[in-house]
Amino acid sequence: MQKKTECDVLIIGGGPAGGVTAVTAKMNYPEKEILVIREFEKQLVPCAIPYIFGETLGCSDKNVASCGAAADMGISAILGKIEDIDFDKKIAYSKDNAIHFDKLVFATGSTPFVHESLEHSLKLDGVFTVPKNKALIDKAKAYMEGKKHIVVVGTGFIGIEMAMEFAESGNNVTVVGGSKHILKGPFDSEIAVQAEKIMLDAGVTFIGGDRVAAIVDKNGDNIVNGVELKSGRIVDAEVVVLATGYKPNTELALSVGVSSGHYGGIWVDEYMRTANQDVFAVGDCSARRGFITKVPSKVMLASTSAAEGRVAGSSLYGIKYMKSFSGTIAIFSTMVGKTAFSSAGITEDEANSAGADIVVGSFGGMNRHPATIPGAQKQFVKLVATRHGGQIIGGQIIGGNETGEMINIIGLMIESKMTVYQAMSMQVATQPMLTAAPTNYPIVMAAMLAIRQIEA
Amino acid sequence: MQKKTECDVLIIGGGPAGGVTAVTAKMNYPEKEILVIREFEKQLVPCAIPYIFGETLGCSDKNVASCGAAADMGISAILGKIEDIDFDKKIAYSKDNAIHFDKLVFATGSTPFVHESLEHSLKLDGVFTVPKNKALIDKAKAYMEGKKHIVVVGTGFIGIEMAMEFAESGNNVTVVGGSKHILKGPFDSEIAVQAEKIMLDAGVTFIGGDRVAAIVDKNGDNIVNGVELKSGRIVDAEVVVLATGYKPNTELALSVGVSSGHYGGIWVDEYMRTANQDVFAVGDCSARRGFITKVPSKVMLASTSAAEGRVAGSSLYGIKYMKSFSGTIAIFSTMVGKTAFSSAGITEDEANSAGADIVVGSFGGMNRHPATIPGAQKQFVKLVATRHGGQIIGGQIIGGNETGEMINIIGLMIESKMTVYQAMSMQVATQPMLTAAPTNYPIVMAAMLAIRQIEA
Repeated sequence: MQKKTECDVLIIGGGPAGGVTAVTAKMNYPEKEILVIREFEKQLVPCAIPYIFGETLGCSDKNVASCGAAADMGISAILGKIEDIDFDKKIAYSKDNAIHFDKLVFATGSTPFVHESLEHSLKLDGVFTVPKNKALIDKAKAYMEGKKHIVVVGTGFIGIEMAMEFAESGNNVTVVGGSKHILKGPFDSEIAVQAEKIMLDAGVTFIGGDRVAAIVDKNGDNIVNGVELKSGRIVDAEVVVLATGYKPNTELALSVGVSSGHYGGIWVDEYMRTANQDVFAVGDCSARRGFITKVPSKVMLASTSAAEGRVAGSSLYGIKYMKSFSGTIAIFSTMVGKTAFSSAGITEDEANSAGADIVVGSFGGMNRHPATIPGAQKQFVKLVATRHGGQIIGGQIIGGNETGEMINIIGLMIESKMTVYQAMSMQVATQPMLTAAPTNYPIVMAAMLAIRQIEA
Repeated sequence: MQKKTECDVLIIGGGPAGGVTAVTAKMNYPEKEILVIREFEKQLVPCAIPYIFGETLGCSDKNVASCGAAADMGISAILGKIEDIDFDKKIAYSKDNAIHFDKLVFATGSTPFVHESLEHSLKLDGVFTVPKNKALIDKAKAYMEGKKHIVVVGTGFIGIEMAMEFAESGNNVTVVGGSKHILKGPFDSEIAVQAEKIMLDAGVTFIGGDRVAAIVDKNGDNIVNGVELKSGRIVDAEVVVLATGYKPNTELALSVGVSSGHYGGIWVDEYMRTANQDVFAVGDCSARRGFITKVPSKVMLASTSAAEGRVAGSSLYGIKYMKSFSGTIAIFSTMVGKTAFSSAGITEDEANSAGADIVVGSFGGMNRHPATIPGAQKQFVKLVATRHGGQIIGGQIIGGNETGEMINIIGLMIESKMTVYQAMSMQVATQPMLTAAPTNYPIVMAAMLAIRQIEA
């Protein structure tokens, strides 16, 4: 027998995008009934999945997202999978439930992308993707127990973070990717090579500029033996991890006639609304574009999803705060060994490809002052700005733990369209144990050097 | 015989303010001759002086500011002390040199402030202030060798950082101050008590709300024995450190007729010019006011000095970048044990005292995500905003190392007059090893909670 459920706002998906939309909506509209429907009881924290595979977390039970706050706020959550939606009647159907809604939010996330030429190999034992699914991650982790030879396909941050976890646990790890350097996209090559060096020093083998042509099962026993590259080279492996990106999970949305945008995501406007003003999409399932270039973007970051969820959750019943989501700034950070790498906005390469007339200011110093402070590390900041006007459109940082929040300073500069002329005399806090010296604060110095380029 | 020296820009003082002014001026006016005159060959990094007294640095030789970059840029530096200035002839005189200048910058810094009732006790053996002078710091450090009982007078960050260094080296330390809690000024009491708890746990004794009435030399042998408090209580000590603030070093400026502002600093406009448009003052020797309240401020931070130096160094020959220095945001951070405390703008207390109609949003979480990440620490963010319009006017953070740069995000929000409505959907980078979760990013959550207060 089918149940009937009533709510004001139905959110399909309980990942970061869905969760933030729910919390924001409840804050904005406390009188509304907010219902989240999700498929699994335990939801992983997406960005920490790599750390399950090494000693940092060591198991998926340490990486389960807490839903306590939402429940405390009076947000309802049920388990289930929506299979059909009647937009005229405003009813979403799961196998055993008819959920009446007033506003609907797709927050269905993303699933691993695998090149079609390799899809058939996913059935081999020892070949895994990196899905945001606890049961599948547990299965992969259990399989890897005792296996030492691992190939990671993909040079994005998930691939590199996993490779480092594998290596630090004593495995023999090879990273394979089509691009010449790792972390291409968020980083210009002079930054990427520094991450690459740390990875090599940790014992990881890197084969760049060579794609995987086939996944090898030489005995025909359905157990993977390695990968064969386009160059003909063969890399032996007991485990192959395909960390080759994600694609929007839009199966449901497309099946019920919601329009898709570029790269298969659900088309949304700047308040995360689909063409139907009562229907929203947030997170990895939505079609994104870049904040600076406005071109379609494949960026999938939980932090971007969270920002979208905050805009959607404030725009369900009319637009409450007239601040739209104008594209992803792609603010991002990762750790490679004990060094942090972060990026925001567009890189020098990307700006040049887009034909933008830019200047660059780079400054290297130390992340503590004086440099004799125990634990002091090198720190490097690169700013990209428009030649005409000096608007800050990108930044990259190498440094210690502080890098993770420092890139958010640059992110805020990009979001608020700040110029290097404003940045060069910005006020900052500096402290010997926590930051660079006031006299050499690297964002300020990079801004000053960018001005020199403009005025040269 | 008196030498004659020619320069375009003469900067008196080689601390952070003078150094940054010199570097900025040389970048802006590469063809100008920039000359820095300073009294001492070796200049200490001011904010790291406390770390000389414990195991963090252990000696002053590890805390000497490098002047290499300035020399490489073609900035000249000489040793000497200016004793007179003829503004009509544009000549500054040291004992053996007549320096002709076109523009003059006072960057003469600050010297320890001691209440007049205690000044005569400075002659006792074992009583020290915390001057920015290597020889005097070395003398104090040498005297303390083998002594175990130390009283620190003053509850500002220099006093607390020194007390912690002393305690961590196994000394018996008492902090005495007139205010009820330590770090009053940058922190509201609910934040300050958390710093205080860490200090007490480290074995430091704290006597608040009781000022020092006298410094005790009970044997009349010119060697300190302790302090006597207003309450009559006596605290024994072999060493008494007076960390009771600093005062602008304006002896030269006042003697040559430059006007002073509030609290004895040199009066300057928003481009750091004195009434004489060819004469500037930057750093602790200048009269400051608050960025938000515009009232006179006693804040002395090297980072504020650096920002002033950047404005002055861009305004020597006409105002190059029309961005003035509109008062100190007093962005500030410190470490107490393994926990960092930071503050920017004004506190809730200060806002209430000023009669401002404000709201507060506070959010506590973890500085890593999930909370199981090794080394994760509690993190707490408090935002102060105007009730009408939601402009962010202050923030305080407790957390790990990331706190030092995180407060610079709030600083930038204050400087760019951002509102909580903009902050609530700001884009940020989040990473398990480096930051809080995207779903609970604390600056965003605090902004959302401040909005709830506004809309309540």
